[in-house]
Amino acid sequence: MNREDLLVERTARAILSRAGGTLQLGIGDDAAILRPRRGMDWVLTCDAFLEGIHFLANAHPADSVGYKSLARATSDLAAMGAIPRLFLLTLAIPPSRTGAWLDGFLRGMARAARELGLRLAGGDTTRGPKVFASVTVLGEIAPGKAIRRTGARRGDLLYASGALGRAQLGLELVRRGMGRDRRLRELLQPLFYPKIQTELGTWLAGRGIPSAMMDISDGLSTDLARLCLASQVGAQIDARRLPCVKISERIARLLPPSARDPRRLALHGGDDYALLFTLPRKKEKLLRSAPGFLNFARIGEITRGRRIVLVHESGRAEILRPLGWDPFRQSS
Amino acid sequence: MNREDLLVERTARAILSRAGGTLQLGIGDDAAILRPRRGMDWVLTCDAFLEGIHFLANAHPADSVGYKSLARATSDLAAMGAIPRLFLLTLAIPPSRTGAWLDGFLRGMARAARELGLRLAGGDTTRGPKVFASVTVLGEIAPGKAIRRTGARRGDLLYASGALGRAQLGLELVRRGMGRDRRLRELLQPLFYPKIQTELGTWLAGRGIPSAMMDISDGLSTDLARLCLASQVGAQIDARRLPCVKISERIARLLPPSARDPRRLALHGGDDYALLFTLPRKKEKLLRSAPGFLNFARIGEITRGRRIVLVHESGRAEILRPLGWDPFRQSS
Repeated sequence: MNREDLLVERTARAILSRAGGTLQLGIGDDAAILRPRRGMDWVLTCDAFLEGIHFLANAHPADSVGYKSLARATSDLAAMGAIPRLFLLTLAIPPSRTGAWLDGFLRGMARAARELGLRLAGGDTTRGPKVFASVTVLGEIAPGKAIRRTGARRGDLLYASGALGRAQLGLELVRRGMGRDRRLRELLQPLFYPKIQTELGTWLAGRGIPSAMMDISDGLSTDLARLCLASQVGAQIDARRLPCVKISERIARLLPPSARDPRRLALHGGDDYALLFTLPRKKEKLLRSAPGFLNFARIGEITRGRRIVLVHESGRAEILRPLGWDPFRQSS
Repeated sequence: MNREDLLVERTARAILSRAGGTLQLGIGDDAAILRPRRGMDWVLTCDAFLEGIHFLANAHPADSVGYKSLARATSDLAAMGAIPRLFLLTLAIPPSRTGAWLDGFLRGMARAARELGLRLAGGDTTRGPKVFASVTVLGEIAPGKAIRRTGARRGDLLYASGALGRAQLGLELVRRGMGRDRRLRELLQPLFYPKIQTELGTWLAGRGIPSAMMDISDGLSTDLARLCLASQVGAQIDARRLPCVKISERIARLLPPSARDPRRLALHGGDDYALLFTLPRKKEKLLRSAPGFLNFARIGEITRGRRIVLVHESGRAEILRPLGWDPFRQSS
């Protein structure tokens, strides 16, 4: 369990967070589930986006900060299959950023809101030493249809909904000062303006296909470990089937070896917001008409026990350690 | 309009925030109102609490930071008359505070949650350069019963639900290094562990007594200006009727004149979380059985026009400028 997860566990122990009343599902999944009435569930989550931690103020365009802070939060709704409805914004900013920077931020957030079908319901704005955004999103889903992390069973197939490592590749370029290079613009899109899988999430949940689902926000290795822990299962990943980011020779020349290894980027890179889901083998054929099916990758399967194993092309198997994003790890 | 309010207005212009769908009331009041089904409204709001801006890390006990960040947010529900149900916590903390400090924070928050009847539904925890908490709270109310800021009418009476300036007095002591003086403990309670008026708020809203209501979080002068702007009215305050904080001679000796002026503290001091409400004159007698009625003060009345006037004992009238808390004012 990574350090962030340990803190979440401590919080849940300290403060009453069991389901009860209108709360169907409390802390520990992608989002909480509420049942305001019999015919509908509401899904509620929040997500922080901090300067210096989640984004670099000088490298990320202001509109990308606005876009991404809302997109990231909404990805947790997509991961349960909910339709996004409303959001609240808490924003702390230094006075020096209340001019053009804030305009850019709001423009990006407005675009994300339009694309994701979200309405701003309220918020709180205050001064802060750095930019800090916390977004709360609320979505809707038919009762009992939300897909949790807890339902994966031995023998289930494991899918990722698209290429992995693209945002991390963008981040490696940004870290080396190439964030404003217009020739690299295409490669930076997944980092700056991540595409959120709301359409796919609602499609899958509506048909009851996944046994478990979450979004890959902190890297496959870390998020798969969370899914397996929640479902009390293990998993086996087939290295050949990993949908790794493609890196051209031109781009490879710009980066040191550790930053251009597609497999490493795909396994541990964060911010992709692809969906990771499991399903019983017999439901696999239902996937063919899913939106974006051609980008799907069946990356492995769920196993008994608790180990997560990566099987290389050679047949060699190694334990896959959770080396994705952890805000509390010193090296990150 | 203060700077924070101008930013809120800019945000509401930039991002779709009109009521529609399940959203009955969007940005601009104490909280948003949602209608998940015919028989019930939900009230949703969020509130930020930052180290160095809203609290002083070395002066505020950790459990007070946890207590107050949840209490403050819940006060916005009380101000609409909603019953608190659930909350989400976004917490950014430096790694150095993840030990005993976090335990204290969570203990204080758990106490506030118990007292206020709130369950933790979820959240997000991350590393930050300073402590930053953003709390989203959700409450419930009978449909159409939530009290907005917009309903005050000329001739309505203006009430405050309790003494004003007590938290500011505590802050003045804390600022001068007396925050840990055990003999002053009683005086620091309103600052560290504010009492939230949920019981009174639901009582008033349930009986439909107030024409407008909000909580006094940024100081009477600033919050009354917001209520009047929202209702498009003015107000006249009777200085003799202000429920000013009491300051003993012993305490007065500890503070410079500007920090011990009860009227100044009552007019412009923040963090009291008393309720400010208006009501038609004919409903006044209904108030007598309200919880905490003995602490109420009828401080003035609503007038035509837009001016907010303070009438002194001598009969002299002066314009009351909004000099309460504004995070973006340089002097604050």
